[in-house]
Amino acid sequence: MSRVLFSFPEQNELGARLTPLVQARPGRLDWRRFPDGESLVTIENAIDGESVAFVASLHRPDEAALALRFAAATAREFGARRVGLIAPYLAYMRQDKRFHAGEAISAPLFARFLEESFDWLVTADPHLHRNPELSSLYRIPATRVVTAPLVAQWIRDNVMDALLIGPDSESEQWVSDIAQRANLPHQVLNKIRHGDRDVEVSLPDVESARGRTPVIVDDIVSSGRTMIETLGHLKRLGLPGAVCIAIHAVFAGDAYEQLLAAGASRVVSTDSIRHPSNAISIATLLAEGSGNHWEEPNPV
Amino acid sequence: MSRVLFSFPEQNELGARLTPLVQARPGRLDWRRFPDGESLVTIENAIDGESVAFVASLHRPDEAALALRFAAATAREFGARRVGLIAPYLAYMRQDKRFHAGEAISAPLFARFLEESFDWLVTADPHLHRNPELSSLYRIPATRVVTAPLVAQWIRDNVMDALLIGPDSESEQWVSDIAQRANLPHQVLNKIRHGDRDVEVSLPDVESARGRTPVIVDDIVSSGRTMIETLGHLKRLGLPGAVCIAIHAVFAGDAYEQLLAAGASRVVSTDSIRHPSNAISIATLLAEGSGNHWEEPNPV
Repeated sequence: MSRVLFSFPEQNELGARLTPLVQARPGRLDWRRFPDGESLVTIENAIDGESVAFVASLHRPDEAALALRFAAATAREFGARRVGLIAPYLAYMRQDKRFHAGEAISAPLFARFLEESFDWLVTADPHLHRNPELSSLYRIPATRVVTAPLVAQWIRDNVMDALLIGPDSESEQWVSDIAQRANLPHQVLNKIRHGDRDVEVSLPDVESARGRTPVIVDDIVSSGRTMIETLGHLKRLGLPGAVCIAIHAVFAGDAYEQLLAAGASRVVSTDSIRHPSNAISIATLLAEGSGNHWEEPNPV
Repeated sequence: MSRVLFSFPEQNELGARLTPLVQARPGRLDWRRFPDGESLVTIENAIDGESVAFVASLHRPDEAALALRFAAATAREFGARRVGLIAPYLAYMRQDKRFHAGEAISAPLFARFLEESFDWLVTADPHLHRNPELSSLYRIPATRVVTAPLVAQWIRDNVMDALLIGPDSESEQWVSDIAQRANLPHQVLNKIRHGDRDVEVSLPDVESARGRTPVIVDDIVSSGRTMIETLGHLKRLGLPGAVCIAIHAVFAGDAYEQLLAAGASRVVSTDSIRHPSNAISIATLLAEGSGNHWEEPNPV
């Protein structure tokens, strides 16, 4: 059983890096959208008996959902024995409970949707808030790879005297992990409430921050609001423009431009979503994560 | 078992017309899209034991697919006993075979997708080209309603001395049916080939067309190209600007504006897709078509 890797158009570059790493050959895939909004997916049909995977980032999940499903079903029609999904960015991880009456709980519903098409899943740093493990949400074999070592290495290689900044207490665990791996200091912004409307945002130790380059890391940067606010706080504390690192460069609308305008000295991201800010390739991680998924599991 | 009708936002007006006709009460539905492209669907949750249906046009099917699925699954979670779909415009009817190697055959794949969520389906004039009946494609009870009587009536009520025009031989059956119902004449454009590049497009009987108002009818108007070309041919033959009738007002991009600019005297459509050109409501047809689908079928 040989391997074929299909890349959805936006992930062509990542797919080209991944293909040799997983000992696959590249499969031809074309995704055309008609003016009326319907998709036409075309894939190479000489895949009988092969193990195939699709690379697709899900940062616009609604637009891509049917195309993914059509591609997987067509691969099976052409005889693919296993069909996997490498989704460097996994969508619908936040709506994992009903926050208000009547809401659809999208996270498990989306999981059920993907499970119908794919035998296995690999993703990078999914937003696991209440579900500590992917397996609590996904019933197919699912692997999450951790980008922190690559992010830590990038900071060491590219930023002089870095100080890692966490925007809020929720980010503490995340930021301290990267700081530890990079052997660098970190601080988390804290809020001191002086009254109903009087909230002071500061760093626990502003003095030791002076002379260092702030580095703000966040997992998903969508509107960019958290990062933009953090840049503002650092500015008011007299610190220089920060390097902003997004694991997943969702960047809705003009969020990227706003972030640059807010004084970021540099904005970088992993290539989980193709974006001009991509600087850290996670291809090796995804290749390792896909590991044995390509092979049929041994009968129990 | 009482009935609840949920309308997706774009179909609110059609839904409001339908609700009393099907003896349902309106259900509250909200569809919010986050900046990162994810959908949040919220529906009224007091529907335990009820028969529900969703009204949604599928002219942008990829964008709506997950929201539809989430809504249906959540209705079942809340105890709905039957979940139907009233899709005045049904998508993915054209890719019903593989035109080129490797293509996904979207029509049956989309049918399988909808069947997983819905117990029954009602639509209007689906584009049934190679599949003469919906039942050859859909495995759930599916009803198609025919808009021709309403279109014929609209022409009789609104156009003086109408002459129905079919853009090509494929439209003959369609146009002659409406003409017969309206008791009006019709002609179909014919192509006379004088050489490789010399094709003359004309009407079989131009003289009898003079003094009448041409009415061009097409089922799906997407790019509007066919209608725009037909308007051009009629103009060259010295006939006045035509009334253009679209059953399904898909109108991709600026197709509607282009059609008006090409000399249409008026452009009208049914309300299968909400559009400024809507003039013919098919609510009564859809209500009749949904008929017994609301009730659980008798055990065989």
